[in-house]
Amino acid sequence: MNIFLNDYNDLCHENVYQKVSEVQEKGNIGYGFDEYSEKAKRCIKRDLENKDVQIEFLAGGTIANIIAISANLLPYEGVIAAKSGHIVGHETGSIEATGHKVELIETSDGKLSKDLLLNRLKDFTDEYHIVPKLVYISQTTELGTVYSYEEIKEIYDVCLEYGLYLYIDGARMAVGLAASDIEVSDLCDICDIFTLGGTKNGAMFGEALVIVEEELKHNLRNFMRQRGSVIAKGFITGAQFLALFEDGLYYELGKKANDMSIKLAEELEKINIKFNQEPVSNQIFIEMPIEKIKPLEENNAFEIQPLSDSEKVLRFVTSYRTNEEEINGLISDLKALED
Amino acid sequence: MNIFLNDYNDLCHENVYQKVSEVQEKGNIGYGFDEYSEKAKRCIKRDLENKDVQIEFLAGGTIANIIAISANLLPYEGVIAAKSGHIVGHETGSIEATGHKVELIETSDGKLSKDLLLNRLKDFTDEYHIVPKLVYISQTTELGTVYSYEEIKEIYDVCLEYGLYLYIDGARMAVGLAASDIEVSDLCDICDIFTLGGTKNGAMFGEALVIVEEELKHNLRNFMRQRGSVIAKGFITGAQFLALFEDGLYYELGKKANDMSIKLAEELEKINIKFNQEPVSNQIFIEMPIEKIKPLEENNAFEIQPLSDSEKVLRFVTSYRTNEEEINGLISDLKALED
Amino acid sequence: MNIFLNDYNDLCHENVYQKVSEVQEKGNIGYGFDEYSEKAKRCIKRDLENKDVQIEFLAGGTIANIIAISANLLPYEGVIAAKSGHIVGHETGSIEATGHKVELIETSDGKLSKDLLLNRLKDFTDEYHIVPKLVYISQTTELGTVYSYEEIKEIYDVCLEYGLYLYIDGARMAVGLAASDIEVSDLCDICDIFTLGGTKNGAMFGEALVIVEEELKHNLRNFMRQRGSVIAKGFITGAQFLALFEDGLYYELGKKANDMSIKLAEELEKINIKFNQEPVSNQIFIEMPIEKIKPLEENNAFEIQPLSDSEKVLRFVTSYRTNEEEINGLISDLKALED
Amino acid sequence: MNIFLNDYNDLCHENVYQKVSEVQEKGNIGYGFDEYSEKAKRCIKRDLENKDVQIEFLAGGTIANIIAISANLLPYEGVIAAKSGHIVGHETGSIEATGHKVELIETSDGKLSKDLLLNRLKDFTDEYHIVPKLVYISQTTELGTVYSYEEIKEIYDVCLEYGLYLYIDGARMAVGLAASDIEVSDLCDICDIFTLGGTKNGAMFGEALVIVEEELKHNLRNFMRQRGSVIAKGFITGAQFLALFEDGLYYELGKKANDMSIKLAEELEKINIKFNQEPVSNQIFIEMPIEKIKPLEENNAFEIQPLSDSEKVLRFVTSYRTNEEEINGLISDLKALED
Repeated sequence: MNIFLNDYNDLCHENVYQKVSEVQEKGNIGYGFDEYSEKAKRCIKRDLENKDVQIEFLAGGTIANIIAISANLLPYEGVIAAKSGHIVGHETGSIEATGHKVELIETSDGKLSKDLLLNRLKDFTDEYHIVPKLVYISQTTELGTVYSYEEIKEIYDVCLEYGLYLYIDGARMAVGLAASDIEVSDLCDICDIFTLGGTKNGAMFGEALVIVEEELKHNLRNFMRQRGSVIAKGFITGAQFLALFEDGLYYELGKKANDMSIKLAEELEKINIKFNQEPVSNQIFIEMPIEKIKPLEENNAFEIQPLSDSEKVLRFVTSYRTNEEEINGLISDLKALED
Repeated sequence: MNIFLNDYNDLCHENVYQKVSEVQEKGNIGYGFDEYSEKAKRCIKRDLENKDVQIEFLAGGTIANIIAISANLLPYEGVIAAKSGHIVGHETGSIEATGHKVELIETSDGKLSKDLLLNRLKDFTDEYHIVPKLVYISQTTELGTVYSYEEIKEIYDVCLEYGLYLYIDGARMAVGLAASDIEVSDLCDICDIFTLGGTKNGAMFGEALVIVEEELKHNLRNFMRQRGSVIAKGFITGAQFLALFEDGLYYELGKKANDMSIKLAEELEKINIKFNQEPVSNQIFIEMPIEKIKPLEENNAFEIQPLSDSEKVLRFVTSYRTNEEEINGLISDLKALED
Repeated sequence: MNIFLNDYNDLCHENVYQKVSEVQEKGNIGYGFDEYSEKAKRCIKRDLENKDVQIEFLAGGTIANIIAISANLLPYEGVIAAKSGHIVGHETGSIEATGHKVELIETSDGKLSKDLLLNRLKDFTDEYHIVPKLVYISQTTELGTVYSYEEIKEIYDVCLEYGLYLYIDGARMAVGLAASDIEVSDLCDICDIFTLGGTKNGAMFGEALVIVEEELKHNLRNFMRQRGSVIAKGFITGAQFLALFEDGLYYELGKKANDMSIKLAEELEKINIKFNQEPVSNQIFIEMPIEKIKPLEENNAFEIQPLSDSEKVLRFVTSYRTNEEEINGLISDLKALED
Repeated sequence: MNIFLNDYNDLCHENVYQKVSEVQEKGNIGYGFDEYSEKAKRCIKRDLENKDVQIEFLAGGTIANIIAISANLLPYEGVIAAKSGHIVGHETGSIEATGHKVELIETSDGKLSKDLLLNRLKDFTDEYHIVPKLVYISQTTELGTVYSYEEIKEIYDVCLEYGLYLYIDGARMAVGLAASDIEVSDLCDICDIFTLGGTKNGAMFGEALVIVEEELKHNLRNFMRQRGSVIAKGFITGAQFLALFEDGLYYELGKKANDMSIKLAEELEKINIKFNQEPVSNQIFIEMPIEKIKPLEENNAFEIQPLSDSEKVLRFVTSYRTNEEEINGLISDLKALED
């Protein structure tokens, strides 16, 4: 079977597994105050070239978004996000459940822009609307597109001007770094808070939430406890992130996943497959007549999304564990469908 | 060092570790719909002698409480709990954060009773108060005390009469089963929803939420997603619970922890240590003059709680990994303080 | 000055004022349990030809919407509404503040329809989305359009089929009844809960919330108290609604407002004013070049809404107190602008 | 009938009624931006000797508490109040419904104190508890007791030291001013935010929320709209408060109510009635054998509260409309019971 279903269908990378295995002894301190977590945080701060950030490890992407977004919003404040954003269509109203409205911006490629944001902000000038306080973007986006340094910087400048926080959901930040001109050491300069996702990049579970802006650090631990997001055996999460960041494994895995998607995109282009979105990261979306999908599913695992009565969008996701055999297998099956 | 700090300071039991290691291959289905989770659920249903319950695996105790308690409460409904309950003093207002008031009952030993509940219910007869809808208890309690079958049955009968749900927080259910006359197969008969805690009984992380009452099953998965509590690589949690329940390991570990605490309690009695609560499960609370604590901390790890200006309460927790050497070490250190 | 600003810029109708004046004596029972409120409810039930409804008087439209919509929603349930709905763009995220997402439907005229609703419901089939539970519509709509009996009945049939509640926001129900083929005695047959607005139809303040569906009556008073919406001197609200409903004044005022808007629409057509929405109730929206607005404001009060760089939409609202002189005055001013 | 039921059982004071009557003309601006509201605010600021406060008029006491307390709390922050406080036992979990826990302090007389507060604050030093942010007190208290200037000042000094807001619920502030050594011009010096209650002191409805602390003013109007607490015909509320404050009527009515309660207390002492709380404001609580209550109810209206199996607490409330005949009537009925 060629696995393109998603990037979180195995246990974890062997180095992560190895590091976790080292925590066999008892007597570890709980709740993230252990030495593994401390070391992991030091490694991340080293890579970020910023010693002042606060780092917290959370179990998954949705809880990381909830904590990052709602911790510092007053009841009448709200969030601005692309209509295609993960918090809009994939998290069951998680942000609204915190009492805060998410105001949407329509986009063609899942990316906000300085102009889209400036234009939308005009709608919030009276007491009949919420007061925008945080802008949500993700790197990479739900459509697999990627922001450049300049694009995020322009958005952040608008945020600074209007007193908004900028949060980057980095569930796929490792691939985002590999696919964009943004260096990990740039991240603290272009937003107030962001995540470095582990679940989709070789960890068993876990997202590193990095808080840059001082205001956002205030009592975050209390809020994490209130939302049930503090992991009792935090040393397990710490060990995983130590494995990912002590010697750059995190970036390697992101690059590996991205190299595989570049390879896949090239092969798809050769056989004139129609892309639904420009293929620039490890999620590739193609359009396919409905009747051709079933045969393709025999040897290939992928996600299917609606498009029209006659066609569907197929999502192929590569990961650090994708190999060339899988790509070649998929391509030959696609070719077979053409004949 | 003799470790009595808590029951979640190691990685996990070796069998759990072994089972998790088996999930190396990729292609696993996410979000708990994998075969490991399915098998684990079948084993738990077998032990519960109930095929109709719904089982969901959650990462930790607080999020399990949030999901179990607030999923089916309407905005004007509330919760009744002992003032010493975990959701009252250890979860940073997690239930109030869902919008629901927790109405308290004072107890001497951390346990609610039929009479205490009936008496408290008299306070909720008018529109100036919330409408009680769920009663929270835990087995074992925050004070290490344990409910008998009859005691919970009486409380549940009141709940059924008054249209209240009864939830048992089983973060330490394994020890609770070992320390009480309640069989695992009794659980579905004496409450509407409960947890089987893994974190404090040999798992890396994870609580099994068991929903007995039909009304409480409705769309629970949507709510779990909304609160960010669905684990992406659910097969890891599934594998852990499969290891714990496929052949009774869960109960063995609970019994081991409890045997160690019985042994410890016996030794403490011999040297006339003053108990703060009757020692009946794996949390033992003793009273100690402040000046004697520091020397005791040299070779022993335990938790300290306030009592008076001259004395503190020390909590000693045993687990399946506690050994007799640790108990003997602690006892001899305590003896030494007497001389 | 010709007043077309809105329908709530005077104290109240003289009969309402008269009835309130009768409550001079002290000793009245508070919180809506007084005889005025009881009589008013009997009159409304008589007109509805339904003795089983529950009626509660609330101070204003937004709090009435909050109570009607969120009282019976579980945390993962949500609301469906037209994108132009009052709860979407005019109430500062009031529904999201209760924790519930409002899922939108785009419309051309502010009205939902059976087909629009059926099509939108297809989006809520998985655990990544909220579970729709209530459909919000208003009579009349934000765009001044009006539903026919058949149109609402079709929507309600879909709601019954899908287990959704249908709520009709009747802030302008009096005009809605005058402008549609719906009789007041029809209302209980085509929705689960609705309001009869007083504020915009001759009262000082107050909306009558009418609950038809049994499930929605449960403990509503507790919820009203929790949201601070129970009026201490409820007899004042009761007296107002008694004046409005004891002898049909409510319907007369709605008809008067509507007759005035028909007259205004006819005059506007004669001078070829371009309507932004078909004029069918007491809110009339016309399009006007920006440069002509200022002179028009000299003798006429109205609301201005954005349209394009060169044009604005002007809203003219008639009420039971609008007189022909005002209409003639406005028309002659508009004519003058043409020359 | 001698009416001691409460202080909000009549329409309103004649001057209030007169002023409201003046708003007959149409064309008034809505939502509190009218001239009546402006004038009323100027009068209140004059009396407060503070031009910088923000003043908003709200319909009732509970919604005023919700707005004042929760507008500026972050999700992990909470409130401290006396266990007998109105928000604790009479508002159906209204504060918890905003997501914030109310931490209680036991008191003998319903009053917090510097020492009680300092002692309670020791409980909030870790991440297992909410972060206290606002202290709630009321003048007068639920038990009819009254704070002195010095008592509130000491509490406020603690609040300033610990970064807490102090809110004074002034539902009965008029009587509180009459019964204490606090001048209206002192209020801005001893708290961050407070209310001047109208409902219980001669208005039809309405509380004036006065915000002293700059941080608390931020976007309050948006929050008021979100909670459905902005009154459409705000000019009616404005007119009422103008009548109450343009020439000191507010203080006169409070004094009148208080004089009547002093008179009543004196008469009760003469006949050796047992007080349940020291009688110092317009709520007087006495203890009465159950069998004597029914006859007393024949000619006297009052509230009954539980005390023991053999006795109840009777609450007698005086208002600006209480007259000596009523007091004499009640006293003679009480005397008759003795014989």
